[in-house]
Amino acid sequence: MSEQTTVPVKLGDRSYDILIGAGLIERAGQEIAGRTGAGRVAIVTDENVAALHLQRLADSLKAGGIESTPVLVAPGEKSKGFATLETVTNAILAARLERGDIVIAFGGGVIGDLAGFAASIARRGMGFVQIPTSLLAQVDSSVGGKTGINTAHGKNLVGAFYQPQLVLADTDVLDTLSPREFRAGYAEVAKYGLIDRPDFFAWLETNWQGIFTGGPERTRAIAVSCQSKADVVARDERETGDRALLNLGHTFGHALETATHYDSARLVHGEGVAIGMVLAHQFSVRMNLASADDAARVEAHLRQVGLPVSIGDIPGALPPAEALMEYIAQDKKVTRGALTFILTRGIGRSFIARDVPPSAVLSFLQEKHPK
Amino acid sequence: MSEQTTVPVKLGDRSYDILIGAGLIERAGQEIAGRTGAGRVAIVTDENVAALHLQRLADSLKAGGIESTPVLVAPGEKSKGFATLETVTNAILAARLERGDIVIAFGGGVIGDLAGFAASIARRGMGFVQIPTSLLAQVDSSVGGKTGINTAHGKNLVGAFYQPQLVLADTDVLDTLSPREFRAGYAEVAKYGLIDRPDFFAWLETNWQGIFTGGPERTRAIAVSCQSKADVVARDERETGDRALLNLGHTFGHALETATHYDSARLVHGEGVAIGMVLAHQFSVRMNLASADDAARVEAHLRQVGLPVSIGDIPGALPPAEALMEYIAQDKKVTRGALTFILTRGIGRSFIARDVPPSAVLSFLQEKHPK
Ligand SMILES: NC(=O)c1ccc[n+]([C@@H]2O[C@H](COP(=O)([O-])OP(=O)(O)OC[C@H]3O[C@@H](n4cnc5c(N)ncnc54)[C@H](O)[C@@H]3O)[C@@H](O)[C@H]2O)c1
Ligand SMILES: NC(=O)c1ccc[n+]([C@@H]2O[C@H](COP(=O)([O-])OP(=O)(O)OC[C@H]3O[C@@H](n4cnc5c(N)ncnc54)[C@H](O)[C@@H]3O)[C@@H](O)[C@H]2O)c1
Ligand SMILES: [Zn+2]
Ligand SMILES: [Zn+2]
Repeated sequence: MSEQTTVPVKLGDRSYDILIGAGLIERAGQEIAGRTGAGRVAIVTDENVAALHLQRLADSLKAGGIESTPVLVAPGEKSKGFATLETVTNAILAARLERGDIVIAFGGGVIGDLAGFAASIARRGMGFVQIPTSLLAQVDSSVGGKTGINTAHGKNLVGAFYQPQLVLADTDVLDTLSPREFRAGYAEVAKYGLIDRPDFFAWLETNWQGIFTGGPERTRAIAVSCQSKADVVARDERETGDRALLNLGHTFGHALETATHYDSARLVHGEGVAIGMVLAHQFSVRMNLASADDAARVEAHLRQVGLPVSIGDIPGALPPAEALMEYIAQDKKVTRGALTFILTRGIGRSFIARDVPPSAVLSFLQEKHPK
Repeated sequence: MSEQTTVPVKLGDRSYDILIGAGLIERAGQEIAGRTGAGRVAIVTDENVAALHLQRLADSLKAGGIESTPVLVAPGEKSKGFATLETVTNAILAARLERGDIVIAFGGGVIGDLAGFAASIARRGMGFVQIPTSLLAQVDSSVGGKTGINTAHGKNLVGAFYQPQLVLADTDVLDTLSPREFRAGYAEVAKYGLIDRPDFFAWLETNWQGIFTGGPERTRAIAVSCQSKADVVARDERETGDRALLNLGHTFGHALETATHYDSARLVHGEGVAIGMVLAHQFSVRMNLASADDAARVEAHLRQVGLPVSIGDIPGALPPAEALMEYIAQDKKVTRGALTFILTRGIGRSFIARDVPPSAVLSFLQEKHPK
């Protein structure tokens, strides 16, 4: 039999399990019926995932006695907006689902965020199950209950904290993901090692190939990642403190995403995070917090798996360091002249630094990104 | 000094106070600053309420050291939809409010439902204060945390349970409400007496004029109403049981609102509820549950204050009893051939009846609304 791992997310009466393993789509009907008792579901998915995997999921649900209505949206970040939210929410209502019925998010992080938000507002809260299909969604966005959409004022500025009742991470479904999207998700896997699991990072350095090829290492890496995120979320569900550690690499990363106008041909989120994590380690070296050896190890590993690791790795022209600094300041809001940053004392020793002088960040960026 | 009453709503870590009294708008800045520490707010309001009262509120906030940004929407139920939700949410973000800042709902039930929902989703949950300005909003919609919008699939089908941090019910602000809207709100006041407070209903029969003219009876009636609703909500925040009692008169009422296409020139919500409560009592008499004297008392009192009390009181043509029955069945979903209804054993003795035969309701309606 295929290996399957369960990661429990402990959030009081909102607790739930993440099941991780091969062939879970085929067992989805049985797991959902057994654990939720639902008789009807809406499957929110995007056209890419639908073409590759929807039929198998619908068949599995049917075999479990569950009637399903598919709700398709266009792939890509543009679907995470008010217009699609309205369409999806109306489609859920049109399917005549009741409060106890279930909305399934079947796709990457875009679908998880969008469908989860729709599930939270339709009838003031329907049942919700995540079946994440991208590596990023399996190790990051499907865990923790943040759902939402983007607006003209910024990404993820509108949404709800809404926990699913169950997460099914089918490790086989990742085989159809493009290598580039897989690598982007891998950046978030490595992040958990860099935050506070040095042994996991060391294990990744040795075992990363099994993750990419779909060996048992894949299940293990996803399970450790989910456990890491679940631990942080259990400590700080609504992001008032510790949860900020999950932003390691994201401050620089977001600035680079802004600088490339979220053009996925040039940079996808996980790539920005990879570069951002390398920069965060290098900046920590500059601040005399971490050793240059540790920063070099991070850079070497991420480069080895095929991720970009420096600003120069991004194709096309970029605005100057001063502009990147501007994006960072907008993103983080400078509080009384100081920035809050995730810095590190070495691999697996990240911390929240609340007093980073913007001038130090700027001169670091000027050096890393000379005009 | 003016009389002021506090009704605490006890919902664990979501508990809050409802302050009721004259001149509260003038004290809003002080109360909000003192109780929430907010420095910035957005005031969501409709054009009617803005023209009459916005300046006073903005001045009061300013005097309390709070900077406010007004967000105006068109008056009326049409503003409770996705389009206005998006506009209002974006306006809140454009005002650069942070998570700890506050959205104030300043208006009737439409504004409370809309602004509360926007507050719940902007930045995944902002601070929220209700300053209800219609009697209906003061005694009903501002209490209990239900927020939301309408869709093509039905009223209030999309939204969130989201509790305010404070409710300020200024009894003076009701002086500018049209007599018809005031009476409509009064129907909900009477409802609390009819649900489980027979003494309150008797007190209303004697003291109703003071409520309409703005005597101290007004504050008392609003306080008892808020307390009644708060008690029910504390027992059943998410409407899985008891909270259904608040629907007394609403099953018939909604059918009449549907039959008049929600045309407020013909019938507003509270008028539908008034007729519905009379019908619920008469139907309970028919089912040998209540005495004819009690039903007559209800009818006499609501007629005395100027509310419609029978289907015949609605101007214009109505569809036949069979169609009304159809609306009821759609609204309530007939479960295995039986309807759930709020019926009564007499004044102040309402209960949830789960096994009402649709045929009995139909023949009752045929008699009350002959072709
Ligand atoms: N909620 C959170 O906590 C959280 C955390 C991190 C990221 N996010 C959000 O997640 C989103 C990014 O997620 P993503 O990277 O999964 O993006 P995505 O959902 O756009 O998926 C990336 C691409 O892969 C395709 N795809 C997905 N699964 C596939 C499969 N099995 N086979 C083939 N193609 C497949 C999709 O159609 C899409 O084209 C962003 O909107 C981000 O804001 C949310
Ligand atoms: N959330 C809940 O629990 C709940 C409960 C009951 C009703 N509701 C909702 O409440 C809404 C009805 O509320 P409503 O009756 O207050 O409607 P409303 O908000 O439309 O107000 C009625 C009219 O009175 C005007 N108005 C309000 N205050 C005024 C004042 N002080 N002076 C002059 N004019 C004033 C408004 O501009 C509007 O034209 C419906 O959408 C209903 O679904 C919600
Ligand atoms: Zn990320
Ligand atoms: Zn009502």
